[in-house]
Amino acid sequence: MDARLPSSDLISRFTAIVGAANVVSDPQEIAPRLVENRGLYKGASPLVLKPGSTQEVSAILTLASETGTAIVPQTGNTGLVGGQTPSADGTQLILSLERMNRIRDIDPLANLLVAEGGCILADVQKAAESVGRLFPLSLGSEGSCRIGGNLSTNAGGTAVLAYGNMRQLCLGLEVVLPTGEIWNGLRRLKKDNTGYDLRDLFIGAEGTLGVITAAVLKLFPQPVGHQVAFVGLASPQHALELFEKASNLCGTALTGFELMPRIGIEFTTRHIAGVRDPLPTVHDWYVLVDISTSDSAETAERLAHALLEQGLEAGLIENAVIAASVAQAKALWHMRESMSDAQKPEGGSIKHDVSVPVSKIPAFMAAAEEGVMAAMPGARICAFGHLGDGNIHYNISQPVGADKAAFLARWREMNAIVHGIVLEKGGSISAEHGIGQLKRDELAAIRPEIEIELMRRIKHAFDPAGIMNPGKVISA
Amino acid sequence: MDARLPSSDLISRFTAIVGAANVVSDPQEIAPRLVENRGLYKGASPLVLKPGSTQEVSAILTLASETGTAIVPQTGNTGLVGGQTPSADGTQLILSLERMNRIRDIDPLANLLVAEGGCILADVQKAAESVGRLFPLSLGSEGSCRIGGNLSTNAGGTAVLAYGNMRQLCLGLEVVLPTGEIWNGLRRLKKDNTGYDLRDLFIGAEGTLGVITAAVLKLFPQPVGHQVAFVGLASPQHALELFEKASNLCGTALTGFELMPRIGIEFTTRHIAGVRDPLPTVHDWYVLVDISTSDSAETAERLAHALLEQGLEAGLIENAVIAASVAQAKALWHMRESMSDAQKPEGGSIKHDVSVPVSKIPAFMAAAEEGVMAAMPGARICAFGHLGDGNIHYNISQPVGADKAAFLARWREMNAIVHGIVLEKGGSISAEHGIGQLKRDELAAIRPEIEIELMRRIKHAFDPAGIMNPGKVISA
Repeated sequence: MDARLPSSDLISRFTAIVGAANVVSDPQEIAPRLVENRGLYKGASPLVLKPGSTQEVSAILTLASETGTAIVPQTGNTGLVGGQTPSADGTQLILSLERMNRIRDIDPLANLLVAEGGCILADVQKAAESVGRLFPLSLGSEGSCRIGGNLSTNAGGTAVLAYGNMRQLCLGLEVVLPTGEIWNGLRRLKKDNTGYDLRDLFIGAEGTLGVITAAVLKLFPQPVGHQVAFVGLASPQHALELFEKASNLCGTALTGFELMPRIGIEFTTRHIAGVRDPLPTVHDWYVLVDISTSDSAETAERLAHALLEQGLEAGLIENAVIAASVAQAKALWHMRESMSDAQKPEGGSIKHDVSVPVSKIPAFMAAAEEGVMAAMPGARICAFGHLGDGNIHYNISQPVGADKAAFLARWREMNAIVHGIVLEKGGSISAEHGIGQLKRDELAAIRPEIEIELMRRIKHAFDPAGIMNPGKVISA
Repeated sequence: MDARLPSSDLISRFTAIVGAANVVSDPQEIAPRLVENRGLYKGASPLVLKPGSTQEVSAILTLASETGTAIVPQTGNTGLVGGQTPSADGTQLILSLERMNRIRDIDPLANLLVAEGGCILADVQKAAESVGRLFPLSLGSEGSCRIGGNLSTNAGGTAVLAYGNMRQLCLGLEVVLPTGEIWNGLRRLKKDNTGYDLRDLFIGAEGTLGVITAAVLKLFPQPVGHQVAFVGLASPQHALELFEKASNLCGTALTGFELMPRIGIEFTTRHIAGVRDPLPTVHDWYVLVDISTSDSAETAERLAHALLEQGLEAGLIENAVIAASVAQAKALWHMRESMSDAQKPEGGSIKHDVSVPVSKIPAFMAAAEEGVMAAMPGARICAFGHLGDGNIHYNISQPVGADKAAFLARWREMNAIVHGIVLEKGGSISAEHGIGQLKRDELAAIRPEIEIELMRRIKHAFDPAGIMNPGKVISA
């Protein structure tokens, strides 16, 4: 596609589709949509389009394909890899699904609901609760992220261990293709082997193959038993062995298993209001264990106590506490979920969202620490995350007193060290955040040529005009 | 591609790749590979190639693409839609993975194993057991079907309710593309958001996009508690309400919920050696409930008894029995799994593998019975299957004394009636068996043009020479 700035005539043709009341053209109002969370990218765009229906999305993409106008879909703008940020040259228009936020249908007996792409995740969770069901996807940004973005990034979060990523939580999709054609794949079926899996191709495509305007989402029975335990232990190896006991004992009742380092407890108790160290004793590592049962509250209690007994007997656990109330359970999760924010007052933070096979987590942690500390003495590694998924948010805070800018300038250098070890262990450089702009070229560098080539062929087959979130995931 | 018969020169070039000892050219030996289970299709082929390595598969497909020679991948030849059967014109070669039956690796701590495409499903189950793990995929044909076929058809079976289809049981793939290029996607990660989901595109593609030569498969803890209950009840509506109670009570401990009609019990007790009616009383419908627990045997017992109590109190259950031994539990499952075979002595059987949203099963059963009986008075409907998945094997046995050939001649007519109602309910005409040849044209007729068009674009992007199992799933 050509990269001319959209003419005022073209702007008015796009505006006419949604109506003047449903566009944003004031640079002041557009500004917040041009930067992502971490400020890694700053884009430019003359216009934000806010369609109110699937047909309007279709009309926008039809015109975009005809005129070679690049469209960047945006929902909650909470992505962490720049996938939702337009290019800096001002040639791309933003398509925001915020007005398409209707729950079209909800069927508790069939355990599903149909949500539009602009629905805020927390609203979908509430809708499920209102009929006595659970929608398990849970993220730090759930109050502002939206279903279209959750699907386009195959969002993960803290409940993946038992319920899976967004891909496992979706039965069907409605997608507007870059050509403007509408694919109605809003199926409500658990089993449907009728041709190629288009649904899972759109999920995780980060808006490069089409715009997800609606989805059929799975609901689950609400657990009746819930226990949260907080465990102090000596090492990731001890945590891994405790995880194996937990998954053998609890099976799918194990709904969370989060690893945290001592420094993470120090950061959160220091900077996050109301967070206290749950244990009187000090330990090098901690695990938050979440157990949910559907048959009875007693089962969850029994499992939690049995797990701690087994862990103590095996010498894996140094000290542990079980939340005695819903409030205490919430407080433990609040500490875990504050761990990213708690790093900000400590200066610059170089971040990684990586995964390795679960059994290799201890070896990865050891090798990564060695590599990072050799390159940057004094670096403060705050590596925490979803041990049960093999997914670690490997964050590095700057040495005390270091210059923030100079520290952040070494982002790519530290990435190379950590990702090198990840790949050596057969891991992934993006466990749940996606590729976007941030990791596009690195992905092309580490993956076999044929894999990138197949993605490119799919991209061209779906988006011949190249107008759909261009430059994200793979280069043109 | 052209459809000339392969020349003897070409035959010898293909033969040279695997060695003369690893081809089958004797028509007698080839014959059984040219017909599928139900005898619906009869193909022809001059040669069966049995490569021993991924590299040999690659060499075969490279030569096939260069020479425009169609290749039909075949594993256990247990498919039910003709996907593994070559065309009748004798132009297509069969590629059998039977020699690639190695378990390359097994890692109980990481809960996974790596199996080649030619591994027999039962052997993979045994390998998992040998390290104290469960590989949950379970099918009637598990003694002969192979992993490559299970993946290519996204196989389902009786454990989908708790563990999912083959797609949910696979972490990574090794695939040889139609061009001969090898894609190594043998990842062992639970979370990996790095670009388009190629894995799930190959799974369920029925060998039209490439040959799956190896896969990373998920393992699970072996349940310690197991209970099987057999329930007599009045209607599919009662069964549905019991299912809702069961899933609320047991959550993922509910590992099977199979619906069976009275006539199915009569067929199996009449024709299957050793099968007895488990209940002294007669009921219109039956449900087999399977419960597995990972924490303790007591939990499974408690859940089974609690479910029957709830069902009796609610007036859903007329009579019920819980298997008192492993042998009794096996016998109940044997009855359910014999239900297809038991129809053969009753004459012709017109079959459907359909799914509808779980909540619509009673309405579907009522409408389908009305439609079928109106068209064919005396037809004996033996509709059974995985109620918990919304998946019914809607089989119609010929009226007593009817002419078998005349009855089977009405296959398409009865399909049209049943599938029409399925579609009306938002269902699928192939829940787990796939499309193959049998349902290809029907799929094109019922799906939006854009959906078939997207599949065709993917097919062309992956298989430009059109040599990979041509004519299956979609027409060229």
